[in-house]
Amino acid sequence: MSDAVKLIEVKEEIQADNARVADGLRAQLAEKRTFLVNLMSAPGAGKTRTILRTIEALRDRWRFGVLEADIDSTVDAERVAAVGIAAVQLRTGGFCHLDASMVAKGLAALDLDSLDAVIIENVGNLVCPAEFDTGAVKNVMILSVPEGDDKPLKYPLMFTVSDVLLVNKIDYLPFSDFDLEAMRERVLRLNPRMQIFEISAKTGQGVDQWAAWLDGEARRFLGN
Amino acid sequence: MSDAVKLIEVKEEIQADNARVADGLRAQLAEKRTFLVNLMSAPGAGKTRTILRTIEALRDRWRFGVLEADIDSTVDAERVAAVGIAAVQLRTGGFCHLDASMVAKGLAALDLDSLDAVIIENVGNLVCPAEFDTGAVKNVMILSVPEGDDKPLKYPLMFTVSDVLLVNKIDYLPFSDFDLEAMRERVLRLNPRMQIFEISAKTGQGVDQWAAWLDGEARRFLGN
Repeated sequence: MSDAVKLIEVKEEIQADNARVADGLRAQLAEKRTFLVNLMSAPGAGKTRTILRTIEALRDRWRFGVLEADIDSTVDAERVAAVGIAAVQLRTGGFCHLDASMVAKGLAALDLDSLDAVIIENVGNLVCPAEFDTGAVKNVMILSVPEGDDKPLKYPLMFTVSDVLLVNKIDYLPFSDFDLEAMRERVLRLNPRMQIFEISAKTGQGVDQWAAWLDGEARRFLGN
Repeated sequence: MSDAVKLIEVKEEIQADNARVADGLRAQLAEKRTFLVNLMSAPGAGKTRTILRTIEALRDRWRFGVLEADIDSTVDAERVAAVGIAAVQLRTGGFCHLDASMVAKGLAALDLDSLDAVIIENVGNLVCPAEFDTGAVKNVMILSVPEGDDKPLKYPLMFTVSDVLLVNKIDYLPFSDFDLEAMRERVLRLNPRMQIFEISAKTGQGVDQWAAWLDGEARRFLGN
């Protein structure tokens, strides 16, 4: 058990440092009028496709940039850049989450004066990213139908720290035993203020409702 | 960047300690003749269902136990125990992976003299569990079809440290753009010795081939 105790102490120290950096970053972004959203999920839940759909829905109104984080590869940033959106790929090189310093570094590579909103695609991981404040104004998570309706029981912190839950891949519902009502009840027990939207980033179903919510939050933040 | 450097150093120290504990555990299990298998995947890839199918296929030959690891909840251990298999739930309480000390603690709660093989269901996470040797003889990972065929590009370490890749939920292939050949090529480029089996833990398809491979490895290890 001594190993475990040691790791926890270190983690707490690092998290306290990170919280300070995140608060500073948030203040700086408020001044610069950049609306920062942190998107988290397990691997393969559809983060990149959701980002593309979201930006497509709101592109007439807001100028978006994207920070793509991955252990390795640049495939996601390439997908985003391919449709003409400013994208930076952060290669974490083994790191399992983004912290506020990494996000600050990524933002420095974007021209924030020409952007209204930046979406962070965090590392695909339902555990570690939930523990590190990125400096974002809103935390959004995706749970995809094939992952199962029991995930709130197993990864409670992620469901607790998120403001929005996007239930993605609802086009898989007919082939799945996913229980939407049971999932919803488990989520709201952990986090009664969670906004829940059901979407399919593949077909576009439900994206408008989620985009309208995000639009409202961006208006509130940017004062437009 | 100073935060990041600090975290990496600590991680390396902890990993070196862990490697020693894992080697000791492996030696002890060889003496006790317990075949230990570590199963890893992203959340919701079907680890528990795969374990149940695997044990069902090999139950006549070997006596199995299961270590279930989760951040929270006991649902997985309950599913395993419900079919009469010795199961221990390890609640990691926020930890994103199992290390060898935690596994040793879990094994101490099982009666190893009455078991031939133990399967560890690691925390659902494609990143951190790949970095920590659990003391297992074989590392097995699941990639489920809905997660997408690009995962080897994004989580290379997991695909590098695993001996076996189970491509699960192949019953979703008709509704997916998952490219089996592209995935296979990406995996073998990282790890030319990877054993790959395509299965559906839901329908049982392909489970026999994987179970036959595991049976061969168990025979080799246990000398039966």
